[in-house]
Amino acid sequence: MSVTAPRGFRAAGVVAGLKDGGIRDLALVVNDGPSRAAAGVFTRNRVKAAPVLWSQQVLKGGRVRAVVLNSGGANACTGPAGFQDTHATAEKAAELLEDSAGEIAVCSTGLIGERLPMDKVLAGVEAAAAELSRGDGGLAAADAIRTTDTVAKIAFRSGDGYMIGGMAKGAGMLAPSLATMLCVLTTDADLDAAALDRALRAATAVTFDRLDTDGCMSTNDTVLLLASGASGVTPDEAAFTALLTDLCADLARQLLVDAEGAAKAIAIEVVGAASEDDAVAVGRAIARNNLLKCAIHGEDPNWGRVLSAVGTTDAVFEPDELNVAINGVWVCRNGAVGDDRDKVDLRPRDVSITVDLSAGKHSAVIYTTDLTADYVHENSAYST
Amino acid sequence: MSVTAPRGFRAAGVVAGLKDGGIRDLALVVNDGPSRAAAGVFTRNRVKAAPVLWSQQVLKGGRVRAVVLNSGGANACTGPAGFQDTHATAEKAAELLEDSAGEIAVCSTGLIGERLPMDKVLAGVEAAAAELSRGDGGLAAADAIRTTDTVAKIAFRSGDGYMIGGMAKGAGMLAPSLATMLCVLTTDADLDAAALDRALRAATAVTFDRLDTDGCMSTNDTVLLLASGASGVTPDEAAFTALLTDLCADLARQLLVDAEGAAKAIAIEVVGAASEDDAVAVGRAIARNNLLKCAIHGEDPNWGRVLSAVGTTDAVFEPDELNVAINGVWVCRNGAVGDDRDKVDLRPRDVSITVDLSAGKHSAVIYTTDLTADYVHENSAYST
Repeated sequence: MSVTAPRGFRAAGVVAGLKDGGIRDLALVVNDGPSRAAAGVFTRNRVKAAPVLWSQQVLKGGRVRAVVLNSGGANACTGPAGFQDTHATAEKAAELLEDSAGEIAVCSTGLIGERLPMDKVLAGVEAAAAELSRGDGGLAAADAIRTTDTVAKIAFRSGDGYMIGGMAKGAGMLAPSLATMLCVLTTDADLDAAALDRALRAATAVTFDRLDTDGCMSTNDTVLLLASGASGVTPDEAAFTALLTDLCADLARQLLVDAEGAAKAIAIEVVGAASEDDAVAVGRAIARNNLLKCAIHGEDPNWGRVLSAVGTTDAVFEPDELNVAINGVWVCRNGAVGDDRDKVDLRPRDVSITVDLSAGKHSAVIYTTDLTADYVHENSAYST
Repeated sequence: MSVTAPRGFRAAGVVAGLKDGGIRDLALVVNDGPSRAAAGVFTRNRVKAAPVLWSQQVLKGGRVRAVVLNSGGANACTGPAGFQDTHATAEKAAELLEDSAGEIAVCSTGLIGERLPMDKVLAGVEAAAAELSRGDGGLAAADAIRTTDTVAKIAFRSGDGYMIGGMAKGAGMLAPSLATMLCVLTTDADLDAAALDRALRAATAVTFDRLDTDGCMSTNDTVLLLASGASGVTPDEAAFTALLTDLCADLARQLLVDAEGAAKAIAIEVVGAASEDDAVAVGRAIARNNLLKCAIHGEDPNWGRVLSAVGTTDAVFEPDELNVAINGVWVCRNGAVGDDRDKVDLRPRDVSITVDLSAGKHSAVIYTTDLTADYVHENSAYST
């Protein structure tokens, strides 16, 4: 179902020849309305890919007719010529849809620093436009945006008279600002661009933005939310935001468990924080500690590495008031040895690390993965 | 030669039984004067091991008679009892040297979160005191502080009528505040504590503090500089600082090439920065980018990962004015594709990455390593 679960949307995924092996690598998602209100959030990396620069301009208008997405090349660090390639892609889609390029968003993912083969991209857009459908199109589109993702990521939720659907990709470089992820979310609810923007920012802040698998921030992260209004229903904004957040959490979980080379899905829950910002900062410092990530891979409850990561932050805490539980066993109490670490069973894939800062009432959960030899292998041979 | 190269120092390294296998694990370095002026720099981690808390107090007095160092246990996150263990260690050395515990520094390295077997530590201090020598003692001490270090790290330099010697350990957790490193530097120059402090801070800031092999900051980092004054020479402070910096750079290089699992020694030179702080921040962001470190391991000149790391910083730069060279080939010019990446030869162990921010005249070099499957293996089985 994916992006075509809500009414008013068609999609397609085709083989444009950007990737080897005759696999899908170009997707098109079209909003047939009656509304075309939209919102987007983008990478906070200051080095932004051409399609991000382009789509940010499009989203300023609050309206999106269609999104063209390609894998097989990020079109990042490609200079003015790369930006022209993105522009030409949007123009091609606009021409086929008899619409304005100013309302066509573009997303790209793949290797940084190479121009896209534009003849193939433009032919791919044409092929995709010819295959647009509500039925198989959603899944084909989700398949086409995969890079090292082993599976397509899709989800949908039903609200009170309306639906939300979505597709996402991203398996490496998952980090602070969203992840290297592309995600298109669709709804047939009737909400204006400002309401969509509020809902999208609220949902991504506690889902995609709390995934941090390897601390690396992408040049291409993009999450778009498109509303067709085809249901005729204008939902309560809080209810819509909650449903959207639930959908984003589902997609984020799919990204987490498919992260490159990961053998463990680690939830780092920071409680007792003086502020939510403190909780997030501590969780992120732990999520990025390579030594701890190696230890979890080795099923070693090495809580000293948790404390050494906490100690690098500016969060409010006293070292002798820190408590740490790994999979429910409080191995560290008051900054020192707690319960017997041999009681910790780290064999399951899901691992929970709880850190109590004993400094307040705020909390946050950051999701990460272990660091494995497979991660090294996958990322040392990616472009060669 | 190591710490006993300058006159006025004796040292020993003994088997205390803290580590398995009957290998040296406890060292003692004694300053026989006539001066005992000293300075120290310590980890900036807020979670500090007991010996760090102890030695910081000792160094406030600006005088050190002796240093006890042990491998086989960090004595970190061990609470008040762990602090008492450090205190008892200093008292034991003081008793044997007929001196004050308030001038005995203590350093520990090894696993966090376990108490030291104090009967073995105290017997080890006694054995070490009995073996103190100027001859073999320096090398034995350097050997005793090794953890996963495959070789002992020692160096010395000759100044105008005085010498500086040193030993260091540290192979993992090398990071922002120095590294998990312990380092004892000795000199027979006659300088007061304030001059030693200035020289030590200047030297470590551009050497140990610019090593960042895995972004992880230790709870135990300690660098001590002890002056015996036995040469009777009071050197020019600038000349002394330069010689000390050269010695520290030598030791830092030894740490870098012995870093856990590393197959490449990577020098990241950031030039054209608006400030030295900007240059260091950009270098560090690149040094911590796991994806880039994997790419270098795979001998893949993936400069896009350099730019994506630069883009996460607040440094002054424009994305379309960034230039990147890898091993001398300018693969990225003006934020886009530059010279042919196939010209880059990444087979040598030493790799240089140069980033020109085109924003000013400042520069800095950060040293790091590649990320390898060996690193993962070594660190996933360390405590089990």
